[in-house]
Amino acid sequence: MDNVYREAALKMVLGKMMAQALDACIVTDLSVIRWLTGFSGSSARMIVTREKSWLFTDFRYKEQAAREVIVAETVISAEGFDAELGSGRYALGESVALQSDNITWHEATRLIERLHGRQRVIPVHAFFDEFRMVKHETELMKMRRAAEISEAVLEAVLPLITPVATEIDIAAEISYQHKKLGAEKDSFDPIVAGGPRSAMPHAKPSSNPFKPGELIVIDMGCVYEGYASDQTRTLSLGRASEEARTVYRIVREAQELGIASATCGMTGKELDAIVRGYIAGHGYSDEFGHGLGHGVGFEVHEEPRISPKGELVLRENMVFTIEPGIYLPGRFGVRIEDTVVLGAHGAEPLQRFSKELIEL
Amino acid sequence: MDNVYREAALKMVLGKMMAQALDACIVTDLSVIRWLTGFSGSSARMIVTREKSWLFTDFRYKEQAAREVIVAETVISAEGFDAELGSGRYALGESVALQSDNITWHEATRLIERLHGRQRVIPVHAFFDEFRMVKHETELMKMRRAAEISEAVLEAVLPLITPVATEIDIAAEISYQHKKLGAEKDSFDPIVAGGPRSAMPHAKPSSNPFKPGELIVIDMGCVYEGYASDQTRTLSLGRASEEARTVYRIVREAQELGIASATCGMTGKELDAIVRGYIAGHGYSDEFGHGLGHGVGFEVHEEPRISPKGELVLRENMVFTIEPGIYLPGRFGVRIEDTVVLGAHGAEPLQRFSKELIEL
Repeated sequence: MDNVYREAALKMVLGKMMAQALDACIVTDLSVIRWLTGFSGSSARMIVTREKSWLFTDFRYKEQAAREVIVAETVISAEGFDAELGSGRYALGESVALQSDNITWHEATRLIERLHGRQRVIPVHAFFDEFRMVKHETELMKMRRAAEISEAVLEAVLPLITPVATEIDIAAEISYQHKKLGAEKDSFDPIVAGGPRSAMPHAKPSSNPFKPGELIVIDMGCVYEGYASDQTRTLSLGRASEEARTVYRIVREAQELGIASATCGMTGKELDAIVRGYIAGHGYSDEFGHGLGHGVGFEVHEEPRISPKGELVLRENMVFTIEPGIYLPGRFGVRIEDTVVLGAHGAEPLQRFSKELIEL
Repeated sequence: MDNVYREAALKMVLGKMMAQALDACIVTDLSVIRWLTGFSGSSARMIVTREKSWLFTDFRYKEQAAREVIVAETVISAEGFDAELGSGRYALGESVALQSDNITWHEATRLIERLHGRQRVIPVHAFFDEFRMVKHETELMKMRRAAEISEAVLEAVLPLITPVATEIDIAAEISYQHKKLGAEKDSFDPIVAGGPRSAMPHAKPSSNPFKPGELIVIDMGCVYEGYASDQTRTLSLGRASEEARTVYRIVREAQELGIASATCGMTGKELDAIVRGYIAGHGYSDEFGHGLGHGVGFEVHEEPRISPKGELVLRENMVFTIEPGIYLPGRFGVRIEDTVVLGAHGAEPLQRFSKELIEL
């Protein structure tokens, strides 16, 4: 299954290379390498040419590469990739693409030197995004599973949220349960933020215990077979204040409006504007300071952006988050987030977790 | 305490800038930004000039920056750093350094464009390493604490290693206990590799249960107040084979030889060669395929490298690992690792965990 899928992916890449008259492409982005070859080690470089592809890694990953890599030939290199590239052992042709958005300026300079002017080097940017944004059914299955695992974990940790537990306790429990339920790892460090800290969209968990009457934002996700999930719920320990309930209701309506409004053919910017307008209409335009969402896949933040800067057109089988929030500094914040798959007839959330305000 | 320390760090950086006739330095490495300013958010850029420094981040980190940042002035930017840099609002002088090893080729190209040729851009490489390699006493305290936490965690998980537990169970438990005992997070995903998998230096934990008689490599570390720890022990579930005991003894002697041999003034390469020679003398030269060690600090892999490529001279208060291993593919592997602080009179391990072969 993965075999067929990876060959199709390589074929798309080769097609684009052909169209842009590129003879070879040096791939430095590990998530692209995993997508193309299945290799999940943390150190690799890849050369794709029209005839053949090579994956370069080191001694530490010899056995892992032998088990995982398909589509490319593995080279276990003692000298390192710079030397391999300079060796002239690999037929690169005349024009070589370098992923300018996934290589340091320093490494790019070094690799260009190693080519000794034999090749023309072309910087390419966001080269693989168009293929990776649109998900294959195999990928969607893995993303659904990642979302399910994380929902089961959220369900499991809710009873642990009490006035004797701290944000760190719950965050640690989330990471632990993710792994126990079969995820590779968290897709990002879980955010568990209570009371005034919930007003910080990217708060780090603290050793503060939860206080009755506080809102608590939990933003979490996991990685399953390379694919990320991302979800947020806001809950209350005990009864929430009237103001908190009102803000919660507005964010929930905004989030549901976002899901209902997403359609193929619109841009990320347009979708963002609809939800942003709704929140502004309730007087909270300054309190929603981040984008409405972002693509999810091999990385937990990828294209398309759903924000005032999101120029890309949304297409079928793209997967992205819809996560409006309202943040009142020093007081409280509310964010509700689902990851959705865009279908021909609208967006379908991967999460089924209730959006009623849970009062624990 | 951190205040004084950070001002000293900034002074060192300004001294080096002065010596190299640099008027401004654009810092893109988040760990350098945290080292200089205390800011621990995941999105920031910094400009250091002789007169003043600015830290740029976005809305999401507004409150966090207000609490954490010292030494620099915080700019919460809606437009992003490219636009800020292009605005001309910040007095940069004539020569501006860019961290070529911590910026993508794409971003470097964009930033250079934004400067409109008003400044000369100088790529700098490993610019901060010399300051960060040598640790301040405040930093060593944090590193000792990180090591202690991880040792306590290893102690706590040993009783859980049984024939009904899997590698993933133990890895999940390690991450959980790290957080519960006060670490921010793992310094890298824990490696728990039993039986033939122990022969893969960077194995990912599998759902394989442990089998009696197997060797198990556990490589783990945590982050405490920004500082990493790193340690490895190899154990046996039940009685190990005679061959495994022999290999264990050689690795242990090699590791202790490494600690005893480390002195100020030698290069990383020289230290590596001593231990490599010892292992080769026992007939395992091909089975020790990685470097002897690496620096540890704000990052779990930093300078100096202790490997055949380690040209840097080791100096007092550098912190690095000593981690020889012997790997017999398809059969078993042994690695023993401590992180050591180099003192005037030799290396002192941060770990105290026994190196006797533990047979559980």
